Amino acid sequence: MHDELKPIAGGGLLDRRLFLKKGLTFSSIAWLAPSVMAEEVRSDAMTRPGRALSNYGKPSNYENKVIRWTMGNAAAPGNGVSWTPLHALEGMITPNGLHFERHHNGVPDIDPQYHHLLIHGLVNRALVFRIEDLLRYPMTSRYCFIECGGNSNAGWHSEPMQTEAGYFHGMASCSEWTGIPVKMLFNEAGIKGRAKWVIAEGADASMMNISLPLEKVLDDCLLAFYQNGERIRPENGYPVRLLVPGWEGVLNVKWLRRLRLTNRPVMARNETAKYTELLPNGMAEQFSFVMGVKSLITRPSYGQQLDNPGLYQITGLAWSGHGKIVKVEVSADGGKSWADAQLQEPVLSKCFTRFRIPWQWDGKKAVLKSRAIDDRGNQQPERYELIQAKGQQGYFHYNAIVSWAIADDGSVSHVYA
Amino acid sequence: MHDELKPIAGGGLLDRRLFLKKGLTFSSIAWLAPSVMAEEVRSDAMTRPGRALSNYGKPSNYENKVIRWTMGNAAAPGNGVSWTPLHALEGMITPNGLHFERHHNGVPDIDPQYHHLLIHGLVNRALVFRIEDLLRYPMTSRYCFIECGGNSNAGWHSEPMQTEAGYFHGMASCSEWTGIPVKMLFNEAGIKGRAKWVIAEGADASMMNISLPLEKVLDDCLLAFYQNGERIRPENGYPVRLLVPGWEGVLNVKWLRRLRLTNRPVMARNETAKYTELLPNGMAEQFSFVMGVKSLITRPSYGQQLDNPGLYQITGLAWSGHGKIVKVEVSADGGKSWADAQLQEPVLSKCFTRFRIPWQWDGKKAVLKSRAIDDRGNQQPERYELIQAKGQQGYFHYNAIVSWAIADDGSVSHVYA
Repeated sequence: MHDELKPIAGGGLLDRRLFLKKGLTFSSIAWLAPSVMAEEVRSDAMTRPGRALSNYGKPSNYENKVIRWTMGNAAAPGNGVSWTPLHALEGMITPNGLHFERHHNGVPDIDPQYHHLLIHGLVNRALVFRIEDLLRYPMTSRYCFIECGGNSNAGWHSEPMQTEAGYFHGMASCSEWTGIPVKMLFNEAGIKGRAKWVIAEGADASMMNISLPLEKVLDDCLLAFYQNGERIRPENGYPVRLLVPGWEGVLNVKWLRRLRLTNRPVMARNETAKYTELLPNGMAEQFSFVMGVKSLITRPSYGQQLDNPGLYQITGLAWSGHGKIVKVEVSADGGKSWADAQLQEPVLSKCFTRFRIPWQWDGKKAVLKSRAIDDRGNQQPERYELIQAKGQQGYFHYNAIVSWAIADDGSVSHVYA
Repeated sequence: MHDELKPIAGGGLLDRRLFLKKGLTFSSIAWLAPSVMAEEVRSDAMTRPGRALSNYGKPSNYENKVIRWTMGNAAAPGNGVSWTPLHALEGMITPNGLHFERHHNGVPDIDPQYHHLLIHGLVNRALVFRIEDLLRYPMTSRYCFIECGGNSNAGWHSEPMQTEAGYFHGMASCSEWTGIPVKMLFNEAGIKGRAKWVIAEGADASMMNISLPLEKVLDDCLLAFYQNGERIRPENGYPVRLLVPGWEGVLNVKWLRRLRLTNRPVMARNETAKYTELLPNGMAEQFSFVMGVKSLITRPSYGQQLDNPGLYQITGLAWSGHGKIVKVEVSADGGKSWADAQLQEPVLSKCFTRFRIPWQWDGKKAVLKSRAIDDRGNQQPERYELIQAKGQQGYFHYNAIVSWAIADDGSVSHVYA
């Protein structure tokens, strides 16, 4: 055995720097015999001109299964959720067409000419802005995930749900957002001393509203106009949404029409009937804003297939609403031993971080896990630890370690382990 | 005048940290009277349910002018170029639908099941890979611009062309690319000692081919499969393209079907008839691979309009094929004085870097310029300096400073200044 192929943890995990080393070959994958080469590399595409240039591109038809999985309410199709297919994606960015959705009463079609943003309540002078005026304000960009507070909620089920990784944990997506620091507009309005909360409200047909602490809004919230370079799409809040880095998705109000400064929360549906949870001790937890540290192996994951024993790269995503990911550990023996994965640069705060580690699969049963740690010292819990702390009746903020079982035929299933 | 509004360079340029300071307001933009507020913020969208969830999103219909500007050959519509609308975008990422195109014989429609990649020539064993096998190889991600060697070539014209910034300089785009280091596959094939060049060839109907130094390929080239998270789109090389960070776009061969290792370049059309330039001294410059240090103000730029004197944010993009941008200087007095712009983090090597600087426009004529400097000490030249070095007959590698003239009515035009 090659020296570099010496495992550094159980189940065949190898040093994360392995693939950077000179001279290593990765020959576990079958390659075609050189004799058939000349024929094999010919392509029909070479025999006829291709299609013309286009004003706006779209994915290949051969990728038409890489879609958001949508689940709408039959009686009100604009009420529901769609999931990002994280299991089919790579890197850190979620393309705009695949960012997850959560709508309460459909996606409004808003003409920006007739949309206004109101800043009022406990301010010295209320302000109303037209979108075209706001677009001339100074902007800043940041990479940031948005995750629904209810993401991964099937993890609370008593049996492990067998679903693709993205259609389980993909109410989380990551983009480069560009917009105006809300602080700048609040300063222009003049904040009154008694103001402690901000009520954000959208211009959709549900008039979705929610309360945020003023301190957070002043810290790092943006009025976001651009996502991955272009203007935000309708399902992500066109023409303007609130960006609340690292906090529950529901706070990132889309189609934003007003921000009202108050001295107390508004007690809206989405902070009382929802997003409030009964704890084992009988107390209710409310305003649990920050999305916890979390990670997920996307390859291999449920529905994928390992063909042969040999070298593989395990990869996935980690993120934390508290700050930066500093470490992701991977286990190939169900948590008995762990090895550090490589973190893809740049590693950014409140942003997806791609991790990778080489793995020599011996063709036997294995259980893969990943565990993320952030720069505030938070560590992703095992499922039993989360349940000990929060009880069995949870719905929101499920961030436990995800376990994938590899069978000896190379198939992958979801297990509680 | 507010202390912070004291200019740090001619023409009203202000300290780049200005907008981060507490207490500053940005009141130059007209805001509506509070009395009309309640009516103004109502929206038709609130009165009816919006549309349902979707499997794959697209931009708002109100943004239908934010498109690639295409210029195809009338006789062969698949031969031509399209430009990224940089003047309408923000941040660092170019969304996949707007990445610039350069096709020689159209966009092939390739079924990945029948596409193969051949590695042959001066290797110990030639290899043929199926796409599905390659997708299991270890991957890495990087943010990287691709710029056509012919980008901005209208800059060589004797009169300044009046065109939107993106439709002049937008044969440059920036994405997060994910793929396999080519070095890994070459090591698996075994490189023979005499190999010095790599001939890359595409599977399109032009069978576009070109030569690259082996050293560069081993250094940082990727076989790229994913762009901004999803699989590369047809017009960007689906199912696989070569990524050659920082070098001429033409080298980033799309629909890649083979890499042949040789001891000399192949002298293809695109390194002889094109991409070779006659210098003033009568010598021809060939294999000028690296894209030089460059920058461009995108707002304000040609076709945009300043409405009122007051505070503005000047913003644009800088990049260098040599490495990282370390500084962008902006002038508002036609180059007499310069001030440092703020660079948007993260600043990455061979990647777009967004810069921003506040500017107090006094309502008079002004000429705006930006000048980028990279970590190898390269500085973007003035136009006359570029022409002194390269002559009047250039076509490729135009990277001179771009000048926008602001008229006293707030309109913006392109000038040589």
